[in-house]
Amino acid sequence: MRAARREPVERTPVWFMRQAGRSLPEYRALRERHSFFELARTPELCAEVTLQPVRRHGVDAAVLFADIVSPLAGMGIGVELVEGVGPVVGQPVRSLADVQRLQATEPDEAILEAIRIVRGELAPEQALVGFCGAPFTVAGYLVEGRASRDFARTKALMLREPEAWHALLDLLADQFARYVRAQADAGADAIQLFDSWAGVLSAADYEKHVAPYSARVLAAVDVPTIHFGTGLTEDVLGRLVGAGGDVIGIDWRLSFDAVPESRAVQGNLDPAVLLGPWELVEERTLAVLEAAAGRAHVFNLGHGVLPQTDPDSLTRLAALVQERTVEARV
Amino acid sequence: MRAARREPVERTPVWFMRQAGRSLPEYRALRERHSFFELARTPELCAEVTLQPVRRHGVDAAVLFADIVSPLAGMGIGVELVEGVGPVVGQPVRSLADVQRLQATEPDEAILEAIRIVRGELAPEQALVGFCGAPFTVAGYLVEGRASRDFARTKALMLREPEAWHALLDLLADQFARYVRAQADAGADAIQLFDSWAGVLSAADYEKHVAPYSARVLAAVDVPTIHFGTGLTEDVLGRLVGAGGDVIGIDWRLSFDAVPESRAVQGNLDPAVLLGPWELVEERTLAVLEAAAGRAHVFNLGHGVLPQTDPDSLTRLAALVQERTVEARV
Repeated sequence: MRAARREPVERTPVWFMRQAGRSLPEYRALRERHSFFELARTPELCAEVTLQPVRRHGVDAAVLFADIVSPLAGMGIGVELVEGVGPVVGQPVRSLADVQRLQATEPDEAILEAIRIVRGELAPEQALVGFCGAPFTVAGYLVEGRASRDFARTKALMLREPEAWHALLDLLADQFARYVRAQADAGADAIQLFDSWAGVLSAADYEKHVAPYSARVLAAVDVPTIHFGTGLTEDVLGRLVGAGGDVIGIDWRLSFDAVPESRAVQGNLDPAVLLGPWELVEERTLAVLEAAAGRAHVFNLGHGVLPQTDPDSLTRLAALVQERTVEARV
Repeated sequence: MRAARREPVERTPVWFMRQAGRSLPEYRALRERHSFFELARTPELCAEVTLQPVRRHGVDAAVLFADIVSPLAGMGIGVELVEGVGPVVGQPVRSLADVQRLQATEPDEAILEAIRIVRGELAPEQALVGFCGAPFTVAGYLVEGRASRDFARTKALMLREPEAWHALLDLLADQFARYVRAQADAGADAIQLFDSWAGVLSAADYEKHVAPYSARVLAAVDVPTIHFGTGLTEDVLGRLVGAGGDVIGIDWRLSFDAVPESRAVQGNLDPAVLLGPWELVEERTLAVLEAAAGRAHVFNLGHGVLPQTDPDSLTRLAALVQERTVEARV
């Protein structure tokens, strides 16, 4: 939390996006008995899954185990999580009439209860990061029906039916603002807004059709915020920074220099590096630490942990970051 | 061709990536009677499909109708093109032994004959752009088996088995060098190397594991080359420029300023803009022309034509570029 606020720290904190979930055998054991949504919507199970990687890897933060479609529960959208595909929306949203059929809902009490349990279990120096998909990325799933390479239908709606686009993003921004505020009230120490697909947009379209809605979600909480996008050029990153975030999360294709000094940085080891030999993980990790030297930095991957990652490598990586950055300060 | 060589031109030339193919009713009519590979591998049909958009849209260049897997014919790789998925490789290449089972082949005579036919049909002032996937992008398909979001298996091979990676890229670079040289000998006026997936890599990995192989393909011909990548940061683009290309093709997320003055530029209208109203197409097109003012520029989209594009919009767009840039010089 101090790194997020750009206050002095003894060493660089470390956590991993998607540290909870499929890379862990203890998670896969639970998944044999429960569906994803049973895990995510039962407070004790959600808390357990959120805590598993903290125990195993000794990371400095837990991140709420939830999907980006979790805050859509009750809005009138049928979503399934399909193995190997991701969220699949039964009836995609493709017109103003489709948007008008959706209703705003209150945040899911089960998720808030999971946050209270996790916060109670964590040590005071461990942070709990809340989680929310950004309005654009969630809208992309709702319009396409599933992940897409070009998000052509989403862009077509944005460019051809600006009224429908505004209505959809407006609804999602309000819904997500309530969701992250409730997470913070329940005990989340920080909120990360994930805009996984912002990279498909030009800077002009991001600025006009996306940034205001992300800004509204980020402004809804008093706790520090982490704003993460992937596949961004420096130009689009600049607009994302403009929309807010105390900490800016970047992937391995950008350099920390692209983030203004007024923000802390998070990232940015390519998760695929963990599929390589340990010597390479070490070399690239030290390069990340070197690149972030002198900045307020939260070590992380540049995107989520890949499911095929050896969990022992993650444990070793967390320790490497923690040890090296203590040494660097001695 | 003069724009590619940065020589004076009367107006900005224009063509569209994937102008041949699914957006055209005359192509879909042919596809009802022939498979994709029948079209691509029968000289007269391939030539016909290549020429269709030149006749319809009045663009300044034809681009060879071929798939990025076309130069793999005969190498011992079973590839199918699956509707809505793209190339699917029956037995993915995932080890040195897998690479060693592949054999180099001579360029497909049917494609070369198609080039001769097209070059004979085009007017002297119309260019024929040859086409080849870049070694990295093709290797990505071979290793994954199909398009992937993160190309984790590809990166794992690259990072964990550098010998296998080198052997594969080496083989592909040689194969593609022969293929583009044969295209140029048969009458292609320029060669475009497509690195559709280079954007998944960090600058360091691109530089070390990809650039030398692309450079080898580009260096194999004496005709002007167009080097195109998508989803690149400014940093990765810089390395792609370093690998070669008289013309650098960029997508809508980058600005022409990111390309050094020593190269001509190609691009960069977001193809999704063509799904919006005409006023928007016009506004964004004029913005692209404005951004390229003073540079040697080939107008194009930032990626391939989307299949759902109205072909009349493309015709109108080609005319807009041709008229406006003549006027600008009067």
